[in-house]
Amino acid sequence: MRSAAMIELWRGGMRESLHCGHAVICDRQGVVEAWGVPGTVIFPRSSAKMIQALPLVESGAADAAGLTDRQLALACASHSGARIHVETVGRWLDGLGLSEADLRCGTHMPQDRDENRRLTCGGESPCQIHNNCSGKHAGFLTLNRHLNGGPEYEQPDHPVQQAAKAAFEDVTGETSPGFGVDGCSAPNWACTLEGLGRAMACFAAPGAGRRGQAMRRLTDAMRAHPDLVAGEGRACTRLMRAAPEAALKTGAEAVFVGILPARGLGIALKIADGATRASEAAVTALLVHLGVLQPGDPVVGQFLPDPIRNWRGLATGRLGAAPGFPR
Amino acid sequence: MRSAAMIELWRGGMRESLHCGHAVICDRQGVVEAWGVPGTVIFPRSSAKMIQALPLVESGAADAAGLTDRQLALACASHSGARIHVETVGRWLDGLGLSEADLRCGTHMPQDRDENRRLTCGGESPCQIHNNCSGKHAGFLTLNRHLNGGPEYEQPDHPVQQAAKAAFEDVTGETSPGFGVDGCSAPNWACTLEGLGRAMACFAAPGAGRRGQAMRRLTDAMRAHPDLVAGEGRACTRLMRAAPEAALKTGAEAVFVGILPARGLGIALKIADGATRASEAAVTALLVHLGVLQPGDPVVGQFLPDPIRNWRGLATGRLGAAPGFPR
Repeated sequence: MRSAAMIELWRGGMRESLHCGHAVICDRQGVVEAWGVPGTVIFPRSSAKMIQALPLVESGAADAAGLTDRQLALACASHSGARIHVETVGRWLDGLGLSEADLRCGTHMPQDRDENRRLTCGGESPCQIHNNCSGKHAGFLTLNRHLNGGPEYEQPDHPVQQAAKAAFEDVTGETSPGFGVDGCSAPNWACTLEGLGRAMACFAAPGAGRRGQAMRRLTDAMRAHPDLVAGEGRACTRLMRAAPEAALKTGAEAVFVGILPARGLGIALKIADGATRASEAAVTALLVHLGVLQPGDPVVGQFLPDPIRNWRGLATGRLGAAPGFPR
Repeated sequence: MRSAAMIELWRGGMRESLHCGHAVICDRQGVVEAWGVPGTVIFPRSSAKMIQALPLVESGAADAAGLTDRQLALACASHSGARIHVETVGRWLDGLGLSEADLRCGTHMPQDRDENRRLTCGGESPCQIHNNCSGKHAGFLTLNRHLNGGPEYEQPDHPVQQAAKAAFEDVTGETSPGFGVDGCSAPNWACTLEGLGRAMACFAAPGAGRRGQAMRRLTDAMRAHPDLVAGEGRACTRLMRAAPEAALKTGAEAVFVGILPARGLGIALKIADGATRASEAAVTALLVHLGVLQPGDPVVGQFLPDPIRNWRGLATGRLGAAPGFPR
């Protein structure tokens, strides 16, 4: 089970740090190109949000609640807790006749700089709507309304999570070996990297029918609203703006997935050590490799910086692909 | 050149992420115990600050300027930019007849929460004294005054940096293969992990004479002022408070060193991927392994958390030693 060298940090002409991991490019049938071991079992974390949102759309719950593409994009998001995210999720809960207190994702300070400053300087505390997963949880609550489930919608045996699990096993084509509790308290089911990549290829080349329609709708919602899927300055948002053909999603502990409808391909990768700087660099390198991004695009320089500059603007090194990984 | 599995993140009964690296425990003669490859060449980054401060003390510059142990601790520090750090370095520069403008470390927001909030909410910008390396640079300026050097004290060929290089090669017992430009613009000379560990053992068991006295004085200054070496909540500060016999210092890209005078031992480690969470966990594990920390000490639970809890306080996993690394 050997991981592949993927991303290196160089300083002073020497390699200072190295990130190893696993990556696959898949079509609907399976692996097209791979680095490391495609059979590695991972927790997809937030990169599975568009899969977890499938029952919301397929069940008719999204249409019954009149959800827009903006809300569907937020259901697939790890948002920054900026005003645009907080207000949209807040109105969504209002529309359901629910409130922040019905969420079960927990509370953390928003990543968005302006909102963080507003709370910090105003002496205010964040609420659960600031949680980066509040859109996913609003989606869970919307499905739960449709299913008439109890309020404990984040429990693994609750109908909402059982529906998410069934969709997950279906699109990965695997029986999950188990789940972990995610940062937002929802269960996160494990799969192989290959299973996740194949699932992304199915989103890229969905069939007809209810499943295919739901996949297309969620992918299109993400691509149409890069600002809602993450936030200003962040990888998913910046990369999707630069590569409008792609739907891209990060997950904690250095997972990244991509859906490329124009090519019928899916991408899935996991950096073994969990470093986000490396997963962002690696997905950028794969998008260049596939011709989805051009090497000279400024966004490539953000996530594969060469040179890296220090506090005084001096060039100190670079972050780049390791030998054997696309550059 | 195989690194060793050192720190693992577990979730839902599965290993989610893995940090590999290299670690040595040394006495003055060399390696006593090792994981990974002791000959791995690394940039020690800020873990070399007590070595870079040797010429400041040995030259007589520190005494000529009347430096206290508090200032020597700051010369070895990566401080948080809290008021206590900023005020002490500010007075130090005043005492030299210099100002913030004479520093060449660059500017970044302080890590200290209160000072960060004060600047953010007051609409103020940080200055170079907030830079975590401003104490090291004040030490450079103090030595520079003594040596009558030019203002470009951070340049690799400047007498201040040549003195630091000579001390570095002397205590590591190696000819450095080269340097990288550090975040603070000073040159950072490379060495083997074994060389760094041996240097730390020399600090732990210094001989007589000027070099030994300087080593003892810097080590004692760090141990006496854990709050000045880093800051509230941070690893060096918390671990030194829990283990008063040790001087401990982190470096960027996941280096950590320890000086254990009571045992005549030095510790040096580098996590290959550069993750600070893993270097902090690994040095904690080694301190427990050596009996410097007790397994039940609350600080062990901070840096080797079991369980890890999410935003709602639910147990989601644990960070712990990998098989083959001390636990």
